[in-house]
Amino acid sequence: MRSGPTGHRGVRRGNLALVLGEIAEGSRSRADLAAITGLTRPAVSSLVDELTAARLVTESGPAEPSGRAGRPGTALALDPQGPAGLGAEIGLDHLGACVVDLCGGVRARRRVGIRNRGRHPEGVLADLAELLRQVASGEPPRPAGLTVAVPGPVGAAEGVLERSPGLGWPPRVPVAAALRVALRETGATELAALPITVENDANLGALAELRLADRPTDLCHLLAGPGLGAAFLVDGRLLRGARGFAGEIAHLPVRPDGPACPCGARGCLEQYAGETAVLGAAGLGGRGGRGRADWIEALAQRAAAGDTAVRGALATAGAALGIAAAGVVDLVDPGAVVLGGGYGELGEWVVPAMREEMARRITTRPWQDDWLAASPLGRHGPLLGAALHVTATVIADPGLLTDDDV
Amino acid sequence: MRSGPTGHRGVRRGNLALVLGEIAEGSRSRADLAAITGLTRPAVSSLVDELTAARLVTESGPAEPSGRAGRPGTALALDPQGPAGLGAEIGLDHLGACVVDLCGGVRARRRVGIRNRGRHPEGVLADLAELLRQVASGEPPRPAGLTVAVPGPVGAAEGVLERSPGLGWPPRVPVAAALRVALRETGATELAALPITVENDANLGALAELRLADRPTDLCHLLAGPGLGAAFLVDGRLLRGARGFAGEIAHLPVRPDGPACPCGARGCLEQYAGETAVLGAAGLGGRGGRGRADWIEALAQRAAAGDTAVRGALATAGAALGIAAAGVVDLVDPGAVVLGGGYGELGEWVVPAMREEMARRITTRPWQDDWLAASPLGRHGPLLGAALHVTATVIADPGLLTDDDV
Repeated sequence: MRSGPTGHRGVRRGNLALVLGEIAEGSRSRADLAAITGLTRPAVSSLVDELTAARLVTESGPAEPSGRAGRPGTALALDPQGPAGLGAEIGLDHLGACVVDLCGGVRARRRVGIRNRGRHPEGVLADLAELLRQVASGEPPRPAGLTVAVPGPVGAAEGVLERSPGLGWPPRVPVAAALRVALRETGATELAALPITVENDANLGALAELRLADRPTDLCHLLAGPGLGAAFLVDGRLLRGARGFAGEIAHLPVRPDGPACPCGARGCLEQYAGETAVLGAAGLGGRGGRGRADWIEALAQRAAAGDTAVRGALATAGAALGIAAAGVVDLVDPGAVVLGGGYGELGEWVVPAMREEMARRITTRPWQDDWLAASPLGRHGPLLGAALHVTATVIADPGLLTDDDV
Repeated sequence: MRSGPTGHRGVRRGNLALVLGEIAEGSRSRADLAAITGLTRPAVSSLVDELTAARLVTESGPAEPSGRAGRPGTALALDPQGPAGLGAEIGLDHLGACVVDLCGGVRARRRVGIRNRGRHPEGVLADLAELLRQVASGEPPRPAGLTVAVPGPVGAAEGVLERSPGLGWPPRVPVAAALRVALRETGATELAALPITVENDANLGALAELRLADRPTDLCHLLAGPGLGAAFLVDGRLLRGARGFAGEIAHLPVRPDGPACPCGARGCLEQYAGETAVLGAAGLGGRGGRGRADWIEALAQRAAAGDTAVRGALATAGAALGIAAAGVVDLVDPGAVVLGGGYGELGEWVVPAMREEMARRITTRPWQDDWLAASPLGRHGPLLGAALHVTATVIADPGLLTDDDV
C-alpha cells in the first residue's frame, strides 16, 4: 500500500506527469506551467524538453496573452503525431479495432460483425490480429500500446479473461499472451511487441464516457446488449473489486422468486433484460440465428415502427434495469448512471421505464433526471475506451516512454 | 485530482509517514527502517527524532538481532502514551464514547442506553458532550482528535449529518459544530479545541473490522440493528460515493413487489430486516417501548431459548440480507461481507439464512464460506472505529502533529 521513499527519480517522474497532465487539460505556455505547478521556469523547460523529445508535446503557436509581464510564450499542446492508442474489442457478435491519437482524435476504426459465440479463442484472436494489422498499418501516429476490451471480468492475473459464458470460452483464457502470438503469426511484429492490456468491456466503456461524454468522475456505466455488464468509476478510477469481478450485474437478483436462470439462481437481471428474454418477449425469440447479427438494429426498427410487443419487451427490460440501477445508486452512489452498449441505442424505449423505477425506488434523496442518461457512444464505447486507455496511461505516466531511466 | 509538485517539505512529510507506518506494522530498529525504506541512516534518525519529539514513537528496548553486522540497535514502537484517539457514537438507542491509544489499546469506554429517536439534536449532543468529558478526563494519553459515528450519511459538507430518518432529525444537522459548542458549554474546553470529524457509523465499523478483526482491505460491512447501513472499503479506503450516500442499503429493493415501505417504495430491505419488521414477525411488535431499550438482547435470549417465531423472524431477516448481500457481491466484489451491529450478535440465527441466499445467488464463481462472517465486535464496532479513525489519521500523516512546518 505504501510507496517507497520519494527520491529524485520519483520526483522527476511525478513532475513529468504533472506537467503533461496540465498540458492535456488545455494548451499552456511554459510560464503558465510554472505558475500552475509551482515548479521553477528552468525545471519546467527541462521537463517540457523531455516530453517534446518523446513526441508527447508539441509547440502549437503563440500562447494566449496571460496578463503576465513580458512577451507571450509559446503554447504547448499534446502532439497528435505522438504515441497513439490502439484499441481492440472482442464482442459476442463482433470484433473491433481502432487507433486514437494523443489528442483523442480517432485515426482509424473498423468494426466487423462476426458471431464469436462458441468459436475457439484461437480463431477469434487470429481474426482480431488480422483486423488490428489492417487498422494499425496506416500512416503514423504509431501506437504506444494495445488495450483489448473483453466481455467478461479480468482478475488478478493480468491479460487473462477470467470467464465469459457469453463467448462460451473456457475459464481463464490468456488473451494477451495468445493475441501476441496471433499478431506475430499475422506478420504484425511491431504490434506484437507492444504492451498489451486486457480489460473488461464495460470498464473501458466507462472510461470512454468519462473522456468523451463529459461524465462525472463517479459514474456507473451499464453496458447492455449481447451481455450485461456494469462498471464503476470512483474519483475517475475503475472499481475492480477484490477479485476483478465488480460490476458482474447479469445475475443480480431483481425478483428473487422470478424465472429460473441457467446460472442456477432465480429472477436474475438477465431473465428480464438479457438478449434471450428481450427477443423472446419481442416475439423474435424463435428465429434462431436469422436477423440476430444485428438484433439491436432490428429491435430499433420495429420499436420505431410502433411494434407493441417490441416496445413492451424493451420497457420490461428497462424496468428490470431500473430496479438494478436503484440498487446501484443505494449502494455505490454514483454521480450518474449511463446506459451504454446496444441498449443505449434503444434508449428511447428503454430509458423511460428505467427512469420510472429508479425515481420510485431511490427514496433517500430527491430524484434528479440527470442521474440517468443513454450513452451517445452506444455500442462504440468499449472500443473507443480501449484505445483511450492506452493514451490515458501514457499521459498519466509519461516516464514510461521518455528516455531517461526514470 | 493531481497533487502539487513534490518539493522538499512534501518529501519530508511523506517520509515521516513512511517511517511511522513501518513502525506501526511492528517494532523496528533504525537499521531496519533504513533497509526497508531505502532512506539513509542519518535521514531515518532525523525522522525518528521528530516522531519521538511528537510522542508518536518510543524506544521499546533492544531490537531483535537482525543478522546484520554490528550491535543490535534499539527497537522503536508506537508510543502508547502518545496522541490518542477519542471516539463518540450517536446511536438511535445509545450514546458512546471511548479513548484508544496509539497502539490500539482501549483506555476508556462507556456506552449509555438512551432513546435518542425524536429527541432534539441539542439535547442529544449535550448528553454526548458530558459523556465525552467524563471518558476523556482520566489519565493521559490525551486525544489528538475526536471522531463521531452517526447513523446516517455524511456528505460533501464536512461535519454535517445529511439525514437520519432513524433519529427523526431534520436534514443537515451540523453535528461537528454543534458538538463543539456543547463541549464548551460542559466545560470541556480542551476537547472543544480538537479537530472533530463526523462519519457514518457503518463506515467506522468497517474501519474497526479492518484494524481489529484482520479483514481483507476490500470489505463490505453491513451494520444491522436499529437502522441498516453498509460500508465499503476499497483497497483499505472508504467508498463514499458521489454525494456521501454510498451504502444506504435500507431501501435497496429486495422484492420489488413486496410490502409498501414508509419511504414510498415497495419491498425495501428494511421491510424484511428492519427493526419493526423483525420485532413484528417475532411477535414483539405490539409492545411499544417496553423491552425495546435492548431488543437485540431480548431477541437473542428468546432465540437461544428456542422461540420459533423469533428464530423465524431472524431467518427471514437473514434471507433478505442475503439477497441484498448477493447484489453487493455481484456489483462491488468485496473480499468478504461482515455482518456487524446488533445482528452480528444475533449471527447464530441470522447468518445461516443469509449464507444460504448468497450461496444460491452468487453464481459467477464458486461460493466460499469465508465470504460471510458475523463481526466479533458486534455493536461496539462503530465506536471503536471512531476512536481508531483518529489514531489512523495521525499515523497516516504524522506531519499533522510534528513541530516542523511540513
